[in-house]
Amino acid sequence: MEQGKKIPDIVIKRLPIYYRFLTNLHQMGISRVSSTDLGKKMGITSSQVRQDFFNFGSFGLQGYGYDVDQLRQEIGAILGLDIPRSMIIIGAGHLGQALARHSAFEKDGYTVVGVFDINPHLIGENIRDVEIMHVNRITEFVSQNKVDIAVITVPRTYAKEVADLVIGLGIKGIWNFTSVKLAVPDDVAVENIHLSDSLMTLGYYMKEMHETKK
Amino acid sequence: MEQGKKIPDIVIKRLPIYYRFLTNLHQMGISRVSSTDLGKKMGITSSQVRQDFFNFGSFGLQGYGYDVDQLRQEIGAILGLDIPRSMIIIGAGHLGQALARHSAFEKDGYTVVGVFDINPHLIGENIRDVEIMHVNRITEFVSQNKVDIAVITVPRTYAKEVADLVIGLGIKGIWNFTSVKLAVPDDVAVENIHLSDSLMTLGYYMKEMHETKK
Repeated sequence: MEQGKKIPDIVIKRLPIYYRFLTNLHQMGISRVSSTDLGKKMGITSSQVRQDFFNFGSFGLQGYGYDVDQLRQEIGAILGLDIPRSMIIIGAGHLGQALARHSAFEKDGYTVVGVFDINPHLIGENIRDVEIMHVNRITEFVSQNKVDIAVITVPRTYAKEVADLVIGLGIKGIWNFTSVKLAVPDDVAVENIHLSDSLMTLGYYMKEMHETKK
Repeated sequence: MEQGKKIPDIVIKRLPIYYRFLTNLHQMGISRVSSTDLGKKMGITSSQVRQDFFNFGSFGLQGYGYDVDQLRQEIGAILGLDIPRSMIIIGAGHLGQALARHSAFEKDGYTVVGVFDINPHLIGENIRDVEIMHVNRITEFVSQNKVDIAVITVPRTYAKEVADLVIGLGIKGIWNFTSVKLAVPDDVAVENIHLSDSLMTLGYYMKEMHETKK
């Protein structure tokens, strides 16, 4: 991978989709794929596909298509899927518990190692062998365990406080499910899942289509 | 609102954020807000804020700032939040159940009216007064109840089948939580929440920051 070059965010967002598609092809026993077929899958042109990969150095052999397994491994490495990541979930409400039970993240190298809440009815319960602990044990836990990512699923009023806490503990990745826009230092990465915003956006497009039809 | 003009998606994505911010200000008793303060909140310039609103016709009084409650209501109307929406959830796994229990959508006008699955252990259970029904009852249910949105939380292998089913029943909005890119007719709106992709993207940025530091 070429260092120091800033890859456009839109290209980064396509990498997981390429990766998943190539994984499916690999499982189906397909060994080669053309940039045209990749582009069709992604809704972009074959030349955009080649340009996407060119950002990371040129791989694959044009004319003969790409080697599915090799390309899959290279994209996986770019995504850092070869680096195992440990996650703690803060907020064991419905959403936090659903994420803790969602085993699919593990195949991509993401493992939940701790779940935290303040609700006394939840503390001591287990989710897939991971105990729900009181939030006041986070500092101790993070000092004794490798934790890469904090998943924040608390009510929005606690979002800033929790983010500041985990950043202070040296955690460099935040997966934020609250609707709060978090202010973080430059060396901390944040990815947001804004459920309510997504739903409102859906409502907008439904309304828009209906009005356009009139 | 000006009809027939295509508003950029990036502006649409900002509307729910404006709306939430204005709701908070309103609850705190703030009656006026400047485009500068709105821009600061959104991470854009005040002139971009004015441009955003100009897309929907000019509202608010420059120099005196915007009337918080009026702007909130206007953006709410643009988002169609004054239109109550009924949702069914297909797939009552951990994520589907968490969404069904998530009461926060209701204050924006989104109500879950039905939950469907194929797992005999789940059918007949209740989630907040909504019964989990067998998927083979969807057609009957949709013919007897107003359903605007289908929330798809099934395993990815069933995603296409479920989407085709609900589109065939005339449902015009899909909130897709599977990693499958759905092909839908022009009059059906889709919003996607791709959890695994978001997590992989987070991993990429964490890796990228680490490498850049070296």
